Amino acid sequence: MTPDTRADILAALVGALGPDVVTAPAQIEPRYLGDWVMALTTGRPSALVRPRTTDEVSTTLRLCHARGVPIVPQGGRTGLVGGATPIDGCVVLSLERLAGIEEVDPAGSTMTVRAGTPLQAVQEAAQKADLFFPLDLGARGSCQIGGTVATNAGGNRVIRYGMTRDLVLGLEVVLADGTIVRSMNTLIKNNAGLDVRQVFVGSEGTLGVVTRIVLRLYPAPRSTCTAFVACPDYERVVALLRHAQAGLGGTLSAFEMMWPDFYTLMTTHVPGMPRPLPLGSAAYVLIEALGSEPEPDLARFERMLEAAAGAELLTDAVIAQSPAEARGFWQVRDGSGDFPRIGWPGKSFDIGIPTPRIGAFVDACRAALVRRWPTAETAFFGHIGDSNLHLHAKVTEGEQPQADIEAVVYDEVRAWHGTISAEHGIGVVKRPYLAHSRSPEEIAVMRAIKQALDPTGILNPGKILD
Amino acid sequence: MTPDTRADILAALVGALGPDVVTAPAQIEPRYLGDWVMALTTGRPSALVRPRTTDEVSTTLRLCHARGVPIVPQGGRTGLVGGATPIDGCVVLSLERLAGIEEVDPAGSTMTVRAGTPLQAVQEAAQKADLFFPLDLGARGSCQIGGTVATNAGGNRVIRYGMTRDLVLGLEVVLADGTIVRSMNTLIKNNAGLDVRQVFVGSEGTLGVVTRIVLRLYPAPRSTCTAFVACPDYERVVALLRHAQAGLGGTLSAFEMMWPDFYTLMTTHVPGMPRPLPLGSAAYVLIEALGSEPEPDLARFERMLEAAAGAELLTDAVIAQSPAEARGFWQVRDGSGDFPRIGWPGKSFDIGIPTPRIGAFVDACRAALVRRWPTAETAFFGHIGDSNLHLHAKVTEGEQPQADIEAVVYDEVRAWHGTISAEHGIGVVKRPYLAHSRSPEEIAVMRAIKQALDPTGILNPGKILD
Repeated sequence: MTPDTRADILAALVGALGPDVVTAPAQIEPRYLGDWVMALTTGRPSALVRPRTTDEVSTTLRLCHARGVPIVPQGGRTGLVGGATPIDGCVVLSLERLAGIEEVDPAGSTMTVRAGTPLQAVQEAAQKADLFFPLDLGARGSCQIGGTVATNAGGNRVIRYGMTRDLVLGLEVVLADGTIVRSMNTLIKNNAGLDVRQVFVGSEGTLGVVTRIVLRLYPAPRSTCTAFVACPDYERVVALLRHAQAGLGGTLSAFEMMWPDFYTLMTTHVPGMPRPLPLGSAAYVLIEALGSEPEPDLARFERMLEAAAGAELLTDAVIAQSPAEARGFWQVRDGSGDFPRIGWPGKSFDIGIPTPRIGAFVDACRAALVRRWPTAETAFFGHIGDSNLHLHAKVTEGEQPQADIEAVVYDEVRAWHGTISAEHGIGVVKRPYLAHSRSPEEIAVMRAIKQALDPTGILNPGKILD
Repeated sequence: MTPDTRADILAALVGALGPDVVTAPAQIEPRYLGDWVMALTTGRPSALVRPRTTDEVSTTLRLCHARGVPIVPQGGRTGLVGGATPIDGCVVLSLERLAGIEEVDPAGSTMTVRAGTPLQAVQEAAQKADLFFPLDLGARGSCQIGGTVATNAGGNRVIRYGMTRDLVLGLEVVLADGTIVRSMNTLIKNNAGLDVRQVFVGSEGTLGVVTRIVLRLYPAPRSTCTAFVACPDYERVVALLRHAQAGLGGTLSAFEMMWPDFYTLMTTHVPGMPRPLPLGSAAYVLIEALGSEPEPDLARFERMLEAAAGAELLTDAVIAQSPAEARGFWQVRDGSGDFPRIGWPGKSFDIGIPTPRIGAFVDACRAALVRRWPTAETAFFGHIGDSNLHLHAKVTEGEQPQADIEAVVYDEVRAWHGTISAEHGIGVVKRPYLAHSRSPEEIAVMRAIKQALDPTGILNPGKILD
């Protein structure tokens, strides 16, 4: 971008929004120059804008649109695919000041929030009203609700409550040219024409900037049952999943499988990590149910597990006797966050494979890695009820050949008709592999929609599509 | 349309697809000339095409696209807004022969079906595999699954399982120019780029023709609890709704309210209709829970109702002691189908109002009707947990002034920030009122997407948008 264009957009933004909202390039703090996985490597932004209102977002987009200046929207920058990483000459649009909860409506079971509100603040506001916002991620303290909408975030409770898309009733979004689309629906059902919100959820900032959201809330659970079980093989893990879904009414809220490579690594190498069951089983599963009545729910949970044991779907099981013990079970599952701490410089993946075939895929994927790197080690785990598999792969000591590992794993994913991204999105990191999971015709539809809503291509260019 | 264009498209279609697939105008049976609510009043189609394969659908669209000939897709023609009604010169595209279930995958809990399959056949195929396809409508025997996708159909169990959108994992759709987009995802989570399927669900045949679908299945319920209760006022109906949601875990599957005008009419004038509770209460609710274990589920259901009675949320309640008794409760709720039979030539509505305000809306709407027509009578009922209200209004004896009644009701809906269509869609019938529920900016986004995917406007023209 030419120095003239840079100076022009900066002056226009400062003139319209003031120096408190607009930061010149030299003063931009480093945290705005990258996200969790990727920094801006060359070039620099033209400005950082931190609006406090939807109108200020609209003004920013209008000014950029008139000049063809790219916009990179940022939430909490906790994404894992480089979706919030700036590009040279862009205006970085941070939503962090457009934050706060506008309304909690207990009778309607809805909440109206601004995009920059941290997820945890949303969860806590729901709790205060004796309600429940089920979306939950490790980054809850720093990710923003607008970012979860833009990326259609998943997390641990998708099996019961769905992804972010399923929790969004309405939204307000600013289009590339600054048009404010207010679609703040609070109704569960609304079939008045095309469902505009669906287009923007999960669009990773490429179609519009989400500024306000109406969220759907649920009743606060009054009981939690948590078990850690061992199964003899993958086929019986799937049978146990269906058995638990059928036997627990609608209450199954997590079904997290850990392969022995993951379980052994976690419970052997992470200091202080509990080991709920002995090593040596073919599969471990954390099962959670959120219910309404502690005693009857626990009795039913036990009956479900006993019947599963009777049918030889599991070989061992332990039920958490306290919230602390349940947290210990989750600590194992969430141990993926400890990989760096144990000096396991693996490459991580977020892939999806049809649930019945995940077991065979894991074997094939591991074999493919070992064929290429005989020293390769893997750690597989995932939300298998959601057909979502995570993988950490370490193929050598020290620095990992990231691109080569990606190529091997994503080629397997393609062969198994899976997805290269179950929940993290595409961003820039996975863009080269989009065609592994989407057909040319699907990608053409994406491009047609992008062209329709952002004809000059200023919104988060280079993310999802090139 | 000129006779030349008509003759040309007919010849092209017959040449490409043969006379078995293509029917000339004079031979088209009357049932293809309208849907449940609206017949083609002037003009006639150029041809009826009944393809057996996706390729034949593609050929049809390609030939029409090249000539600018409009296409009107038809499923079971059971829609209530004229969405499947042909227009002069169009090619009617019936999906009825593109039918059949391709696969039921119990381990994956998915089903792959062709668009023309009747909903009831889908339900039965799920049941045969000890699974459950929860979408259910009165028209189950004649509506087609492709039509439910095209209209994002709702029904009685949305409160638990969502609308059709929530049950569609993947789809195959043919675009206006004949391009086949295969997006037959079987994964619960797939964030690989824009979610293409969302654009087509609920688009009423205006963006593409759905040909095949991957559906999500659920475990078959093993218990059903059904109650019919009376409440002292609307506020306590909402409190009861939240109480039931919180107290029944995830099992609440229906919460159907009937206002006294509806309840009295049904249980007084329909021959053989049961009357589960005496007349005289301010509100009646049918509550259903689908669970996993008959005895504990019934005990919990009773505890929930007892606690509600203790909190004075309800004044009377009866629990069905047999499936026959439960069917009797549903017979009252589904009595709306009996309006013609009792000589009640009302105008019916499918509107949405935020749940907490439905009670006040009903009063305001009834008052507005009576102001205009002092003899007006109403019958209100609805899925209030889904913020969905149905209304039959009869303002005079004999023929009803349909357009005037619409104007009064939809003006109220606009004033209360509701939707003119919670589940039936827009079609042609509600098109004049779309702006009552959608802002100009929302409608502009709809138009941009329509323009992007169907630039020559051949797909179901005049439906949703003019």
